[in-house]
Amino acid sequence: MCRWIAYKGKPIYLEDWLLDSKHSLIEQSKSADMTQYQVNGDGFGIGWYGSRVEPGLFRSISPAWNNSNLQSLAKHIISPLFLAHVRFATGTTIQETNSHPFQFKNWLMVHNGMIHEFALVKKELMTAIDAYYFQYIVGSTDSEILFYLLLTNGLQKNVNLAIKKTIQLIEFTAKKHQVQQALRMTLGLSDGKSLWGIRYSSNAESATLFYSLEKNNEQVLIVSEPLDDCAQCWIPVNESSILQFDKNSKMTVVNITKPEFILNKA
Amino acid sequence: MCRWIAYKGKPIYLEDWLLDSKHSLIEQSKSADMTQYQVNGDGFGIGWYGSRVEPGLFRSISPAWNNSNLQSLAKHIISPLFLAHVRFATGTTIQETNSHPFQFKNWLMVHNGMIHEFALVKKELMTAIDAYYFQYIVGSTDSEILFYLLLTNGLQKNVNLAIKKTIQLIEFTAKKHQVQQALRMTLGLSDGKSLWGIRYSSNAESATLFYSLEKNNEQVLIVSEPLDDCAQCWIPVNESSILQFDKNSKMTVVNITKPEFILNKA
Amino acid sequence: MCRWIAYKGKPIYLEDWLLDSKHSLIEQSKSADMTQYQVNGDGFGIGWYGSRVEPGLFRSISPAWNNSNLQSLAKHIISPLFLAHVRFATGTTIQETNSHPFQFKNWLMVHNGMIHEFALVKKELMTAIDAYYFQYIVGSTDSEILFYLLLTNGLQKNVNLAIKKTIQLIEFTAKKHQVQQALRMTLGLSDGKSLWGIRYSSNAESATLFYSLEKNNEQVLIVSEPLDDCAQCWIPVNESSILQFDKNSKMTVVNITKPEFILNKA
Amino acid sequence: MCRWIAYKGKPIYLEDWLLDSKHSLIEQSKSADMTQYQVNGDGFGIGWYGSRVEPGLFRSISPAWNNSNLQSLAKHIISPLFLAHVRFATGTTIQETNSHPFQFKNWLMVHNGMIHEFALVKKELMTAIDAYYFQYIVGSTDSEILFYLLLTNGLQKNVNLAIKKTIQLIEFTAKKHQVQQALRMTLGLSDGKSLWGIRYSSNAESATLFYSLEKNNEQVLIVSEPLDDCAQCWIPVNESSILQFDKNSKMTVVNITKPEFILNKA
Repeated sequence: MCRWIAYKGKPIYLEDWLLDSKHSLIEQSKSADMTQYQVNGDGFGIGWYGSRVEPGLFRSISPAWNNSNLQSLAKHIISPLFLAHVRFATGTTIQETNSHPFQFKNWLMVHNGMIHEFALVKKELMTAIDAYYFQYIVGSTDSEILFYLLLTNGLQKNVNLAIKKTIQLIEFTAKKHQVQQALRMTLGLSDGKSLWGIRYSSNAESATLFYSLEKNNEQVLIVSEPLDDCAQCWIPVNESSILQFDKNSKMTVVNITKPEFILNKA
Repeated sequence: MCRWIAYKGKPIYLEDWLLDSKHSLIEQSKSADMTQYQVNGDGFGIGWYGSRVEPGLFRSISPAWNNSNLQSLAKHIISPLFLAHVRFATGTTIQETNSHPFQFKNWLMVHNGMIHEFALVKKELMTAIDAYYFQYIVGSTDSEILFYLLLTNGLQKNVNLAIKKTIQLIEFTAKKHQVQQALRMTLGLSDGKSLWGIRYSSNAESATLFYSLEKNNEQVLIVSEPLDDCAQCWIPVNESSILQFDKNSKMTVVNITKPEFILNKA
Repeated sequence: MCRWIAYKGKPIYLEDWLLDSKHSLIEQSKSADMTQYQVNGDGFGIGWYGSRVEPGLFRSISPAWNNSNLQSLAKHIISPLFLAHVRFATGTTIQETNSHPFQFKNWLMVHNGMIHEFALVKKELMTAIDAYYFQYIVGSTDSEILFYLLLTNGLQKNVNLAIKKTIQLIEFTAKKHQVQQALRMTLGLSDGKSLWGIRYSSNAESATLFYSLEKNNEQVLIVSEPLDDCAQCWIPVNESSILQFDKNSKMTVVNITKPEFILNKA
Repeated sequence: MCRWIAYKGKPIYLEDWLLDSKHSLIEQSKSADMTQYQVNGDGFGIGWYGSRVEPGLFRSISPAWNNSNLQSLAKHIISPLFLAHVRFATGTTIQETNSHPFQFKNWLMVHNGMIHEFALVKKELMTAIDAYYFQYIVGSTDSEILFYLLLTNGLQKNVNLAIKKTIQLIEFTAKKHQVQQALRMTLGLSDGKSLWGIRYSSNAESATLFYSLEKNNEQVLIVSEPLDDCAQCWIPVNESSILQFDKNSKMTVVNITKPEFILNKA
């Protein structure tokens, strides 16, 4: 499992939440609290929106806690919208292309969780990816496959539908291969305007996900676990739901209704 | 394009041909002679057979010419059979899993060349890989796909047939996608007993490949280009052929007959 | 030897000169023209001034030509003043702390050249570094020693004097150890306001260095070799001279008078 | 702080103690028991003696727990004498030259601990290193300085004396700079024949160090913490002592008498 944060609001230095807060993401890379996987030292990545449509991306295979390039970049990059991730590898190789965020054009995605029994279902899931997107796969993680399945399922047109279709496909494929629990995920997504936080798992026991609002939504954070001690500041994202902050940071929540898949799967 | 060497014979230190010869592989990583791609600085790898059935493997993303780990390992590893490779990336990511050799169980493969218009044919070729082998794909190169296609086509049972079937599949897929030249390759292969050198390209203008015999085949080398100035020591491998040195270093040559594919493709 | 560029002017994307020009720095990393060391693949670095007093710094041990992080950063970082460097190692280790620029507070330095017979004079030169600066030495290059000697000799107060004193010290130390040629260097320096280009070598046969002015000095470049084919755009920096563009890009040139050292050394 | 192991005995695969034992060194890299610094993810290294006088050396900046090169090398390298180390950086850069073991000719050293207030005493300690050895310093750790001080103090002639002199020098220098506790260390040392384990700290509260003997000393291990659950197998090394296993694995213990330094320092 991994840890990630996503920020949307007035432009800030990345270091504010990556380095400086009490339980910052870099702190979490060495000692996360709300997971049994405390050490997330298998690489990291940051993706940020700036003056271009496509976001900037910096990914590394080294642990985040002692990376001098990350520290300098976090002190110098200012952004109104960014995602950052520290990785705990669940069986796949340590290489930059397996570090999150994953990027396609103006889209970024970070993932905490896993597709269970990935080796069993990998070929079938990859085959479901559109040939156009297929050529962009450069790593070997379940997370990257998830990203390109979302794109194949229309992420760029309808996020909620793409998420539902992709979950449905993964659940269906798992069932076919007699895998008990298909999927476990929290996702952070952005197109450079909106920010989404998704929480879903096959057994409805998803990893933790919180959001935080400050000053009339002027600053929004979505995080794997709280970044400081302020208990009331961090609100749990509902199980099986899609949280969206649009370009004006207006919040909407959509449930990922379970029955839909069960009915479809049957 | 890349440069590679393969050795079979009495146990020697890897450094003998990696570091010490006049035009050693490490020398070639910085200034290859028989290719327009003189700088092969996009990673390297060594695979060697020792006291176990599976070979040892050390791969890196750094250039070979200044890598202190490689230098120490080459000075200390002694082997009767090894392959080594320096990479010139043709469009794919620099990551360890894209460095050669590729390994599966007791098998090793190195590749110089490319599958042309790989983005166009990648999905179709990957779909042809057996689901069992599919899970082991961890990189993003055409070379790795070539390796798992060979395995899918029975490399472990019949090398010559696997090579012919794989070439046929790639030629057929290229034709289907209207790619003019399908494939360009020299391949080094070993199962820990035999050593194979393959030279093939769609237009019969393959990259250079040479072999060298010393002392009644006691020492055999297959190389992208000669490792020293001894002109008569290095014999060109025939275009469209499979060269094999068996466990006793007995040499056989099999032609890869072109008509066969054209007829089959028609 | 290495290749470097330094830019001062209206804020631009780093990619303009790192990636996009005909003979960009990244192009030079693979095939430099004006040096016998055409491949500068032993790491790279960028340092840029932004919204803070201290510059940002990103350094790597990988070749610049295929580094996806560098490409993304160069597309997203906008700066009015930056230095970038691709390294050809002259005997020292490949590690990030040996990649240029070197940074201390608001200062950045890049270097092309070498202190000759560095192993012979290393201890004596390092001993001359002030104890306060000594603790910041983290790499093992002659270039980093040169930087901390400049700081010890008052770089932050008087650049010209610090350069002269440092050259004098290195020349003197070389002579003491009977090293024929002490030093060979082109230097790029900045404090975040001014930009300096220095050209000096013991035998007055320094590596190439050029500058370019556009539109009434609104944009200034100092480079190891021209970045495009415009012959008249690139003006050679004089041998044994210090070129300065101040915060208004006003240019001054100071000679590094040779007799001074010879007299002092005698 | 760090974790290390050293082995001397019949030739074995490195994996036996690096990977396969219940609380192997790689296991310790992620969750060490006998230290407050449980995550030793700031690089690793192995040094082993084989068929040459100089040992082989493989060092990396990545965590040991997911490094595929380490896993392959540990499965293939067989040695009668090796040292291995996983690093917890105490303030210095993550780079290969800061990973242990340190090597000079036939000598290897690993270190757990630190020279306190290293920035304060660094220049003075480095100045004490002989000019001949000075040129070989390529990293920036206190540990490497310790190694070259040992060499300067005659390690190659008299290990016990070199250790005592070096401790004395560091204690003396610390006192001069009003540093309360000078040094904290466990050291593993070998010249390719003998194996030494040293335990010392200024306040006589050294980090843990154990040794283990099997079958009449045929196999000897010295380790930061036990590699399995066998309580009686692992014997603590005495505080302030030098443990030596000679080429026949005969054990001797020498005390590092405290008064000697105090008297000398006064």
